[in-house]
Amino acid sequence: MASVNGNGVKASPETEHPRKAFGWAARDTSGILSPFSFSRRHEIVGVVTEVGSNVHKFKVGDKVGVGCLVNSCRSCDSCKQGFENYCPRFILTYNAIDTDGTMTYGGYSDTIVVDEHFVVRIPDTMPLDKCAPLLCAGITVYSPLKYFGLNEAGKHVGVVGLGGLGHVAVKFAKAFGAKVTVVSSSPKKEKEAIENLGADAFIVSSNSKQMQAAMGTMDGIIDTVSAVHPLTPLLFLLKAQGKMIMVGAPEKPLELPAFSLIMGGKIIAGSCIGGMKDTQEMLDFAAKHNVTAEIELIGMDYVNKAMERLAKADVRYRFVIDIANTLTTA
Amino acid sequence: MASVNGNGVKASPETEHPRKAFGWAARDTSGILSPFSFSRRHEIVGVVTEVGSNVHKFKVGDKVGVGCLVNSCRSCDSCKQGFENYCPRFILTYNAIDTDGTMTYGGYSDTIVVDEHFVVRIPDTMPLDKCAPLLCAGITVYSPLKYFGLNEAGKHVGVVGLGGLGHVAVKFAKAFGAKVTVVSSSPKKEKEAIENLGADAFIVSSNSKQMQAAMGTMDGIIDTVSAVHPLTPLLFLLKAQGKMIMVGAPEKPLELPAFSLIMGGKIIAGSCIGGMKDTQEMLDFAAKHNVTAEIELIGMDYVNKAMERLAKADVRYRFVIDIANTLTTA
Repeated sequence: MASVNGNGVKASPETEHPRKAFGWAARDTSGILSPFSFSRRHEIVGVVTEVGSNVHKFKVGDKVGVGCLVNSCRSCDSCKQGFENYCPRFILTYNAIDTDGTMTYGGYSDTIVVDEHFVVRIPDTMPLDKCAPLLCAGITVYSPLKYFGLNEAGKHVGVVGLGGLGHVAVKFAKAFGAKVTVVSSSPKKEKEAIENLGADAFIVSSNSKQMQAAMGTMDGIIDTVSAVHPLTPLLFLLKAQGKMIMVGAPEKPLELPAFSLIMGGKIIAGSCIGGMKDTQEMLDFAAKHNVTAEIELIGMDYVNKAMERLAKADVRYRFVIDIANTLTTA
Repeated sequence: MASVNGNGVKASPETEHPRKAFGWAARDTSGILSPFSFSRRHEIVGVVTEVGSNVHKFKVGDKVGVGCLVNSCRSCDSCKQGFENYCPRFILTYNAIDTDGTMTYGGYSDTIVVDEHFVVRIPDTMPLDKCAPLLCAGITVYSPLKYFGLNEAGKHVGVVGLGGLGHVAVKFAKAFGAKVTVVSSSPKKEKEAIENLGADAFIVSSNSKQMQAAMGTMDGIIDTVSAVHPLTPLLFLLKAQGKMIMVGAPEKPLELPAFSLIMGGKIIAGSCIGGMKDTQEMLDFAAKHNVTAEIELIGMDYVNKAMERLAKADVRYRFVIDIANTLTTA
């Protein structure tokens, strides 16, 4: 396993950076993870162990997090407006080639080195484990709720699909003061949605009577479903000029009936994680309103089993790996 | 031909209203129009001949227009916000059943009676014939340009399709100070787009080199195409967080690749005509900036021939019927 830099010169994982790291990685196309020694720059939530001389935001001992992004151009319109997530040159935290030609190795490891611009402060009251998924799932739903004006008390927000993204969408929308209706294909999720997550209402998407009753009532919808699904019944749930935001990404194209957008002046938008400023704001808001992700904490040696269960959507709602306590013993 | 009121009681065209009118109408499914006497309330652009005692906005002799709407509930959120076009109870000017159960007969006739709220003032400097299409095509493109923030100098607006809607979209976007690029499947429309309508650039949609060069450059797109067409190449033209607004309505669903919306946080919206306040604002703006529709003025007796030509898209860009001078002699 080796990365290729901009000049096509191969660098081995051991020589890319002076910092030595130990982690787990998938070494071949089997997807099976195993222990891996390499030089690196990266982790996800943890504690600052060292700061560079130009670092002003953080000091040793601070609780911090790194989300899906570790770099961007910092000069395009998107970057300047705080949407590094839409920078055409953003660098993902995992499996990407950074501007220096080295590989970004994700967070299954003991250390990470990241530019402070892409590091967020984790509020002291926030538990690290339940906070980690907020850096991806949390910001992915928080950003469009804010950007499309659904972060106001009295709005009616639909959340389609109740998985990793959906369950935090319910929590954030409720924390904003919205009325929240979960739309799901699984009737058995009703109890969870209402009693555990605090949703106000639950609709089974195949129940035409329930769908009909909710027609034209929603200001916005966060659609988290990543399987191909019909859009028309969801668009009918929106009020005039309502906004449906897709954050799941079905691989195949969906059918878009133009007429159901035009009558009612509705919007379908896509949204992809969020910018660094919004990510910090999201964490501060989450701490204040006690929003955390529902997680199953696992050890490093469970990671391959967890991958199997993920493929079957068998998790409520996110696995979080306790790297610090289990990496070296695994 | 008779309409049915809300109680299911049939009223003949002669007895619905005390006002007698003469016009042309399609009497059966052939679509052929012929002279028709009826009682009625309705026209399109013209001069006020009479005002009711509670009418304050207009006086006899004023140049006025009536667009696609003649009624709405006036109390829903959409109505209250000036978007009567999204009122679930709006009444179209033609071929609709009004709240009193009578038929709305459109504008091919000598007189019309309309609530002043749905009547707009036509600026004195505006020629009636070139103004008439603005009440539909004009407001249909003006409203989304305004609503989606594309009405600012320096924005780059794409106009897809150069027909009745597209040609006024180019004119309005230019009048707002935008850079305008026309995207069309017909290379032969380039001269018209640039030299006659003032577009800054022209792209043939099948020319991948031209499409590639324009990738990621547009703040917004007004898509006027009513045939089924691929969305992905158009979405690629948008900058991050760019907005594509569909105002043509393909009958069959389009293919929506969620991924091309999500990466870049893009929006596809539908938009349908516009509200009354915006319609008046559009006319005043058009008069100030000398925006009119390109039309072919015809007499009433040409209407069936015009319908044939419309079916072949053989008009640049709208037929306008000179009802006042040709109705009774036809």
